[in-house]
Amino acid sequence: MKKIINDPADVVVESLRGLAAAHAGVLRVVEDPALVVRADAPVDGKVSVISGGGSGHEPLHGGFVGPGMLDAAVPGAVFTSPTPDAVQAAVEATTSAAGALLIVKNYTGDVLNFETAAELAAAEGADVRSVVIDDDVAVADSTFTAGRRGVGGTVLLEKIAGAAAERRYSLDAVEAVARRVIGQVRSIGVALTPPTVPHAGEPSFTLADDEIEFGIGIHGEPGRERIPAEPADQLVARMLAAITEDLPFERGDRVLLFTNSMGGTPQVELYLAHGIAERLLAEQGITVARRLVGPYITSLEMQGISLTLLKLDDELVELWDAWVNTPALRWGV
Amino acid sequence: MKKIINDPADVVVESLRGLAAAHAGVLRVVEDPALVVRADAPVDGKVSVISGGGSGHEPLHGGFVGPGMLDAAVPGAVFTSPTPDAVQAAVEATTSAAGALLIVKNYTGDVLNFETAAELAAAEGADVRSVVIDDDVAVADSTFTAGRRGVGGTVLLEKIAGAAAERRYSLDAVEAVARRVIGQVRSIGVALTPPTVPHAGEPSFTLADDEIEFGIGIHGEPGRERIPAEPADQLVARMLAAITEDLPFERGDRVLLFTNSMGGTPQVELYLAHGIAERLLAEQGITVARRLVGPYITSLEMQGISLTLLKLDDELVELWDAWVNTPALRWGV
Repeated sequence: MKKIINDPADVVVESLRGLAAAHAGVLRVVEDPALVVRADAPVDGKVSVISGGGSGHEPLHGGFVGPGMLDAAVPGAVFTSPTPDAVQAAVEATTSAAGALLIVKNYTGDVLNFETAAELAAAEGADVRSVVIDDDVAVADSTFTAGRRGVGGTVLLEKIAGAAAERRYSLDAVEAVARRVIGQVRSIGVALTPPTVPHAGEPSFTLADDEIEFGIGIHGEPGRERIPAEPADQLVARMLAAITEDLPFERGDRVLLFTNSMGGTPQVELYLAHGIAERLLAEQGITVARRLVGPYITSLEMQGISLTLLKLDDELVELWDAWVNTPALRWGV
Repeated sequence: MKKIINDPADVVVESLRGLAAAHAGVLRVVEDPALVVRADAPVDGKVSVISGGGSGHEPLHGGFVGPGMLDAAVPGAVFTSPTPDAVQAAVEATTSAAGALLIVKNYTGDVLNFETAAELAAAEGADVRSVVIDDDVAVADSTFTAGRRGVGGTVLLEKIAGAAAERRYSLDAVEAVARRVIGQVRSIGVALTPPTVPHAGEPSFTLADDEIEFGIGIHGEPGRERIPAEPADQLVARMLAAITEDLPFERGDRVLLFTNSMGGTPQVELYLAHGIAERLLAEQGITVARRLVGPYITSLEMQGISLTLLKLDDELVELWDAWVNTPALRWGV
């Protein structure tokens, strides 16, 4: 294993120091327990939107902290759920009388620890709700979870719920829009190469030179099947079919298309895949009204991509377009 | 080789189609010769700022086309200079009576082809100037060039020259500020793994499991030396020393620190390295007044980072901070 790190045990905290130095105007970092907090939190009268999970998926979640998106992110160790006390500390650091919404990706450890934290915070009088996102159509159960996994849709959910909170939606209303996003978003991922977790020191899995893991999870957990490498046209069509058949997405739908790099994918390949997806959706009469292309929910250096489709309505478009000022997503400011 | 592509010969054009679909409001793509052009070009009375070079370094240069930065980018094949006629077409598509500045990275093929294009355009009456950037302190001569190579400083140069042009600086004044940036910017890169060029099908070089190429070029060309893998604290210190000793950068200087991913580096490592660089510069009494962290000039999927320091003055800060609206850099809008 070659990595640009010191002691594997210090990777997360040392990386957070770099994040804090680079984006001091937007966020601050707490080291024990590790938290990324919006610089001006708590914001009076605004619902606090909080997420978190294992590290190694950056910019998710710490890179999405800032006005218009998350009030706090709770990073666990690499690919490891954060502890309940860390989540509780994030609630305490950012929550006004307007309450807090916890955005939880559906992994068993995350769900348990966020639930425990919500109960602890509620016992101290905070109005805390949780939503669990499970947008990955690949498999019903997997290494890290019962039920579908939470993946790329999380990025869109955090942006939209964050915008709703920024507009001073009530906690009920932020929760309702979050649940609508969860109902209307679907994703699928593929891997060409594995990630290497620093404290493990070895690649998480092995793939032959001509194999692709179809339906990969963001921790390198297995997908639906291993398939022979195939041209991008076929691979992207296979991925889109898995998503569109699931919800389903149909002719006449208006969608946001999110083409995500798993971390190590060259940008030339990412945009190539995005272009194919745009063409195929147009052929199916599905209108791509908004798009996001880049490495936004990653699995360390894993090569591969994921595609996410969100069915849009006017309110979701407006919340997506609303200004945002975070390290990884920034517009309108 | 596993890549998300169709025919290796079509990678660049198919990728440009994805770029055009994703960012239609900001830029348009021409396919033959391949060009990325600002959507509203030519802009009357504004100097056109044009760059280009081999593909595989995305977002450089096509991802920097848009208001406040480049008027056009000319992508060659992967790691291959664009032809003079393509550069000339970019000049014709974007140049008003205010003239054009060509930003050329110092690689022999690029310099020759941009020079020829400038002569062809001048013969047709356009007022065209060129600047050559050679900010890489690693080696004096290399596989692709005589003299120092142009690397990370190019990103900063394109932003600052683009902002000057957007403010309707004259061609003389845009050229002058560009030359000042070139004089005050220095970079160094390291690689942990090689890139694989699609039409080559094999990694560009091999490194042992415990080796780092110190002073790597963005095409995988050799650096100063191969060193044993070492902790990030030592590696970043070694990189910074190479830069600061060169200009030199000294106590009391105000700088922009740009921590760049070569493409495949996990973001957790990138920010970790950035944090170390911030700390070491503070210890040396060098003030980091602005920063940029991310994959902005890459070498396909190569793992590694580069560090770039630009000595700032008030005008350069103002131009850096000015609004920009491109796929890869966007703020103030």
